[in-house]
Amino acid sequence: MKKIIFMLLFAFSAQAQNIRVEPASWWVGMKNRNLQILLHAKGIGSSKVEISYPGIELKQVHKAESPNYLFLDIEIKPEAAAGKVPIALKNPDHIAYLDLQERSSKAGEGFDGADVIYLITPDRFANGDPSNDNTSDTKEKANRKHYNGRHGGDLKGISAQLDYIRNMGFTTLWCMPLLENNLEEVTYHGYSITDYYRIDPRFGSNEEFKGIVQKSKEKGLKWIMDMVPNHCGIDHWWMKDLPFEDWINNKGKFTPSNHRREVHQDIHVSQKDLEAMKGGWFVPTMPDLNQRNPFMAKYLTQNTIWWIEYAGLAGLRVDTWPYSEKAFLQQWTKDILDEYPSLHMVGEEMTLKASTIAYWQQGKVNPDGYKSYIPGMMDFPFQGALVQALTEKEDFHTGWARLYSAMADDYLYPAPDKLVIFADNHDMNRFFTQIGEDKELFKMGLAVVATMRGIPQVYYGTEIGMSNPDSEEHGVLRADMPGGWKGDKVNAFTGENLDPLQKELQDFTRRLFNWRKGSKAVHAGKMIHFVPQQGVYTYMRFTATEKVWVILNKNKEEVEIPFQEYTEITEGNSTFSDALDGSIWKEKVKIPSMSFRILVAKGE
Amino acid sequence: MKKIIFMLLFAFSAQAQNIRVEPASWWVGMKNRNLQILLHAKGIGSSKVEISYPGIELKQVHKAESPNYLFLDIEIKPEAAAGKVPIALKNPDHIAYLDLQERSSKAGEGFDGADVIYLITPDRFANGDPSNDNTSDTKEKANRKHYNGRHGGDLKGISAQLDYIRNMGFTTLWCMPLLENNLEEVTYHGYSITDYYRIDPRFGSNEEFKGIVQKSKEKGLKWIMDMVPNHCGIDHWWMKDLPFEDWINNKGKFTPSNHRREVHQDIHVSQKDLEAMKGGWFVPTMPDLNQRNPFMAKYLTQNTIWWIEYAGLAGLRVDTWPYSEKAFLQQWTKDILDEYPSLHMVGEEMTLKASTIAYWQQGKVNPDGYKSYIPGMMDFPFQGALVQALTEKEDFHTGWARLYSAMADDYLYPAPDKLVIFADNHDMNRFFTQIGEDKELFKMGLAVVATMRGIPQVYYGTEIGMSNPDSEEHGVLRADMPGGWKGDKVNAFTGENLDPLQKELQDFTRRLFNWRKGSKAVHAGKMIHFVPQQGVYTYMRFTATEKVWVILNKNKEEVEIPFQEYTEITEGNSTFSDALDGSIWKEKVKIPSMSFRILVAKGE
Repeated sequence: MKKIIFMLLFAFSAQAQNIRVEPASWWVGMKNRNLQILLHAKGIGSSKVEISYPGIELKQVHKAESPNYLFLDIEIKPEAAAGKVPIALKNPDHIAYLDLQERSSKAGEGFDGADVIYLITPDRFANGDPSNDNTSDTKEKANRKHYNGRHGGDLKGISAQLDYIRNMGFTTLWCMPLLENNLEEVTYHGYSITDYYRIDPRFGSNEEFKGIVQKSKEKGLKWIMDMVPNHCGIDHWWMKDLPFEDWINNKGKFTPSNHRREVHQDIHVSQKDLEAMKGGWFVPTMPDLNQRNPFMAKYLTQNTIWWIEYAGLAGLRVDTWPYSEKAFLQQWTKDILDEYPSLHMVGEEMTLKASTIAYWQQGKVNPDGYKSYIPGMMDFPFQGALVQALTEKEDFHTGWARLYSAMADDYLYPAPDKLVIFADNHDMNRFFTQIGEDKELFKMGLAVVATMRGIPQVYYGTEIGMSNPDSEEHGVLRADMPGGWKGDKVNAFTGENLDPLQKELQDFTRRLFNWRKGSKAVHAGKMIHFVPQQGVYTYMRFTATEKVWVILNKNKEEVEIPFQEYTEITEGNSTFSDALDGSIWKEKVKIPSMSFRILVAKGE
Repeated sequence: MKKIIFMLLFAFSAQAQNIRVEPASWWVGMKNRNLQILLHAKGIGSSKVEISYPGIELKQVHKAESPNYLFLDIEIKPEAAAGKVPIALKNPDHIAYLDLQERSSKAGEGFDGADVIYLITPDRFANGDPSNDNTSDTKEKANRKHYNGRHGGDLKGISAQLDYIRNMGFTTLWCMPLLENNLEEVTYHGYSITDYYRIDPRFGSNEEFKGIVQKSKEKGLKWIMDMVPNHCGIDHWWMKDLPFEDWINNKGKFTPSNHRREVHQDIHVSQKDLEAMKGGWFVPTMPDLNQRNPFMAKYLTQNTIWWIEYAGLAGLRVDTWPYSEKAFLQQWTKDILDEYPSLHMVGEEMTLKASTIAYWQQGKVNPDGYKSYIPGMMDFPFQGALVQALTEKEDFHTGWARLYSAMADDYLYPAPDKLVIFADNHDMNRFFTQIGEDKELFKMGLAVVATMRGIPQVYYGTEIGMSNPDSEEHGVLRADMPGGWKGDKVNAFTGENLDPLQKELQDFTRRLFNWRKGSKAVHAGKMIHFVPQQGVYTYMRFTATEKVWVILNKNKEEVEIPFQEYTEITEGNSTFSDALDGSIWKEKVKIPSMSFRILVAKGE
């Protein structure tokens, strides 16, 4: 009888229907030859494993606490050729496969100050394929009427707007997470991942994702993936059968994080608070992954490398950075960079303290000896200071002084030019709302984002002044991009029915970032800035052959700046030309009220 | 004829009437054997110098740009004995003396977390000698009716209140500068020094100063001197005859500082701003000393050492720290500490950015390689956070979270325990005003100052709730201490006619800081703090044998804290007793509404 059952099981599993293999594919020729494969199937924990494939060595088989898992350590030797690697399991019998592939796409090229990132909430950008708005294998159904519902945006929609994005002057796409979020509700944002190896079918397929990244490359656009190593979604497949009790923090049960990110640096920290921060869950629907479990740590690392290699990514944005384990973050980033030395990644630490963000950047010498490897971070202090600079009354400590003082903190960073700067993102009020829907402040703000050190990032819709005056709900400010849905009367992509203000802001943004493409001084130049004086803040980005002089005037009156007032900028150049309106200036320059100029001088 | 004039001159100068010698006295047996003596007299620049005294070697004579100065480099060898060292000058002829003394007082003992500093505005504390309210050699006359006038406070007044100060629980006095400020007006504050070697006669004499420091020592009180190396007063004697054109920044003419202290760290700084910060004057009445001039740098260093040695000081408070030259600050502090390794000094950098203050502390590894030697700084971020913590509504980022977050920045400091913490000082609104004259907040605030890591400092009058509700003028908040003037109806020193609130605050302060004297855990213990929860912030200071558990409750209701909620504090101790009311707590503790407890457990 037993034998019959086993034979039946084998017949069933031979088609690999009920065996989960993660990763199910990998590549020959990776620097790191080691791979750990997770196998999940009923009772598989007691199976014997055999792999017979030239160049593949099964080094170790680890059982989990659950009887339904195995973790296989294999080595992929240089002589291994691409092909289907059979993983034979006996007693109970199964057959699984690792799809070993040739490396194809150039992955991990990185992004830098020459780039401009366009941040997209993929559910809210463009619905290119209404047929996938609902799928049989996902629980939440489309509901465009609810701000927290799924609106139908997808990869096809983005794919159709790559020319729009490129023509706006952006070079790099960062989509909020695209991986499967198969929960009952509020899944549009993507941060509740339920399958780390699958694009959410309402966005498209893995192949479509790979395809759009490839298509983007051909158009000169890069992709950054939004990685979420801290938590998964509550309906992740493994939540019903954890391999280890400690796979999820607090044994798989909700306990809240205290969200006190200071614990990582604090020399007075209590262990209670440290554990609550690291081990607590972000929210009840997001189980906190225990990265202290070495199988979990490896799982996450391999998953990240898999996506970089599979899709050909340029870089990563890392979600909720300080909610993860410090030691894990260190090893995870190191392992990724060992494989892709040019890849750029930026972490999210949503604080206004530059010292805290600097703590995490690669190269920072920290008092506690902690060595971080992530080359960049999101520059929240810049964002906060920019909005204060624009909206506050000018005084010794307020207005432009905020931005001046924030930039003066750059000494804290090992590499301030590798930070991502932005006027807003998906987790805060729309920039246009933050500045009181003032179009002159909008232009000044974007001019700063376009010319300051760092890598600019623009949130979709900001270019047409999208705002959220009535609600700070994230689902509201992440509104649909007009024109992304069939039947939209207004179309931001074609310009159709944009009102004059939207048009003006969009034209401005396009001109600004297209000009930026050609300025090496802005991409990678040094910077000198000056103490704000009477409502004017000015700085220069420069290389040996190019000067870009930015002058921002928040006064209600025009100001006239004699060149001799800023000899550190003007010496050696008698003429500067305005990058946007083409006007030529000698000896002095006039800046209209509530406006700015980007002045350029080339050669010596 | 010429000869007669010379002979007359000699006869005159032989009595050293018109020759200025600085320093006019020094000590045998200093670690640094070298001394540079400034001589100032009409035409002295062309004199030949001879010193004939056993153990004294004249190593070099420097002329200045002015014909009326000489700078002599001498070496005081180990064999030199105390005595009057004649400095013979020929053609023109003069005779000057260096008074070489034996070292007597133990100078430079330092201060630390076991101390509590009492900050005094000496013109406003107590008038012990009305006969010196006006002197023939000082221009500004007494006017107690004007908030910016001289009110008559003096050293004799302070001397009479040493017991009051000691009995309040304070251990260390810091007076705002006592040196001569011989300007026409607004000289009460002391920061416009016109003679670096003379106590202002309206405060007393050099001998009186030395005497009060000695008397204080006998009572167990230390002295800190307020040093002003950045600027002098506009009527300083040398302003009419500068030794060098660059003795004072901007050639002795006023040009304003931009007050942008960020320039010292800023990697994007313009040379224009850097120079304006360092070389600009604090205000028009305070000429900015050019510490790049090596004679000036030496002058200031020797002057500081002179006062430490002469009076027997425990430490220094350094005014307007970042307004001075970085390289000078480095050398100045190093030279002082080479002579007095135990001496403590704290610098004033009035910023809320912990990272900026940390930059200056001895031991900080800075990205630009700048090595600072000052062992302590004033902890302005603590002060700002304390007031916010007390006055703001509790929320994730506000209320106690401010203080928690500020303390969590301690990792930035090489030695947070060497910072001076305070609820207010002479440059800001009175603490009682800052907290809306709420006596419960007052007590909580002072309890924090008394128990947090660092060296507490209390501004005179704060202990009786002095306030400045109607004006933020410095001259107003630095009001007269009641009881310091003959005829005062209210006397804070005796308690006479203090109103019940004043009495309550004073009694509380006395009890608090007297208890503090005996707590090693508070003086030098480690610290653990906890994330604020529902209006309660709690932390522990501890040694191997003593625990001090501070619990602050800002709620309108009593809270009950079970010991098991804070096992990192309570483990191993079943009983804690309240340091102030003596109540005993087991298993749990109740904290009344808007109040706090300092709980103590000893032994294991």
